[in-house]
Amino acid sequence: MPLQYNEFYNEQTGLTVGLKKKLFSKKSEYQLVEVFETDTWGNLMTIDGMVMLSERDEFVYHEMLSHVAMFTHPEPKRVLIIGGGDGGTAREVLKHPSVEQVDMVEIDETVVEASKLHFPGVGDFDNPKLNVKFEDGIEFVKNTAASYDVIIIDGSDPIGPAVGLFERDFLKTCFDALADNGVLTSQTESPWVESYHPSMKKVFTSLGDLFPITKMYLSYIPLYPAGMWSMACATKKESPLSDEVLKRASSNTYLLNSLDYYNPEVHRGAFALPNFVKRIIED
Amino acid sequence: MPLQYNEFYNEQTGLTVGLKKKLFSKKSEYQLVEVFETDTWGNLMTIDGMVMLSERDEFVYHEMLSHVAMFTHPEPKRVLIIGGGDGGTAREVLKHPSVEQVDMVEIDETVVEASKLHFPGVGDFDNPKLNVKFEDGIEFVKNTAASYDVIIIDGSDPIGPAVGLFERDFLKTCFDALADNGVLTSQTESPWVESYHPSMKKVFTSLGDLFPITKMYLSYIPLYPAGMWSMACATKKESPLSDEVLKRASSNTYLLNSLDYYNPEVHRGAFALPNFVKRIIED
Repeated sequence: MPLQYNEFYNEQTGLTVGLKKKLFSKKSEYQLVEVFETDTWGNLMTIDGMVMLSERDEFVYHEMLSHVAMFTHPEPKRVLIIGGGDGGTAREVLKHPSVEQVDMVEIDETVVEASKLHFPGVGDFDNPKLNVKFEDGIEFVKNTAASYDVIIIDGSDPIGPAVGLFERDFLKTCFDALADNGVLTSQTESPWVESYHPSMKKVFTSLGDLFPITKMYLSYIPLYPAGMWSMACATKKESPLSDEVLKRASSNTYLLNSLDYYNPEVHRGAFALPNFVKRIIED
Repeated sequence: MPLQYNEFYNEQTGLTVGLKKKLFSKKSEYQLVEVFETDTWGNLMTIDGMVMLSERDEFVYHEMLSHVAMFTHPEPKRVLIIGGGDGGTAREVLKHPSVEQVDMVEIDETVVEASKLHFPGVGDFDNPKLNVKFEDGIEFVKNTAASYDVIIIDGSDPIGPAVGLFERDFLKTCFDALADNGVLTSQTESPWVESYHPSMKKVFTSLGDLFPITKMYLSYIPLYPAGMWSMACATKKESPLSDEVLKRASSNTYLLNSLDYYNPEVHRGAFALPNFVKRIIED
């Protein structure tokens, strides 16, 4: 059955999404940012043709990238987000009452522009605790004098402007910018896409060398390749699976009730890796 | 970008798979069974256009449907599989050394024919412990005098011949055909596909009424809708999350080393349900 022109087809994901219309298309200095109205996933943002988020499934990615980090730290006050221009990660981080300041460093203002226009439920851009900076996150971290409790690397795939986010030198500067009990999370691609295995292996090897504790965890993100997405959690002190962390993750009922994916059991269960996934990052 | 005729497109999944050629196509008394050679997933079987398995991802479904049941029972000897014509579930069940007899009741001989021809690595059809019967599984369970330790319901989606596998009357006959400490698992569709929520709710309500313990668990199956697949585990006695079960699941190193997905941590982690999934089966 031949597809129609009004269907988005992502070669990397094998995913086809029915489109109603194109809402936004802008070639920035860095990349092509587009937004489509879809049949069943709400609005969909792509960058250089790769799926970034849809209104219907964005909660999974943003909750899992944020809350695993935020509950692993005992009292996160200062948070740095590298990338994250759609605003969803900042929105989740800002739900934590301990937070005093969130610095979001997005290289491409076009992503924020598209999100504000077409994903009104995703960002919390008017929150006074949020500082959005349009600059290169790699340079920012290298030069910052600040000390963060949590750093979240919310970049796109390791081709194009996000390639440096998978490099050891950058991860070392993140380590240095974290306070003594700092926690880092990063998106680290789909275990099903073999062409990304070298990047995944590199990230986990680098984090494992730099941090006392580094673990991979997984979540189900339908519009990302193969629906299985990996993330890294690296910490200077506490394991994301310690009893303390799991107890903390259960404590804020008000926050937990606002979530659609994350809960303390999911936090713990996400770190259980199928054998074929373990093999990707083992030596 | 318009797709080509040589691409399989599943409207339900939104999945597009590049096809090299059609290897098998037969309209049986019950359904249309087809096999395609694909670009990157090995051979792919569809029934009435719905994805059943690919060579590359079948291990996830078959390991998770089988081993969760098999390790939850203390010493499974007699196993009944309803459906499962591709042979993958029986292959996994037969890895357990306690097994003496596996009855596989598949309504449609065409599925076994297609599997033997085009999925030579999936079935273990020559195993002397395996009895394949071509008849209606619902009638078989109703009339059997046998008592099984484990029953695995490995049917297709609840439209067409598999619709009865989601009915309470059938599940009651399964309960009756199970021994005192019997365990049942069943595939129960994707939580992301809203049109299946009523079927899912019905299965879990019926199992919950019949069995002392009923739980949902999840696994990542890339070619199934949205990549997230749910399964039910219902038991007469022991919880699939008891310390005994998890200890047993760790004990057979030889078996575990042969697997690509299942391990004791994954067994436990699979029962951690995201909030939006819990809501589907809660009242």
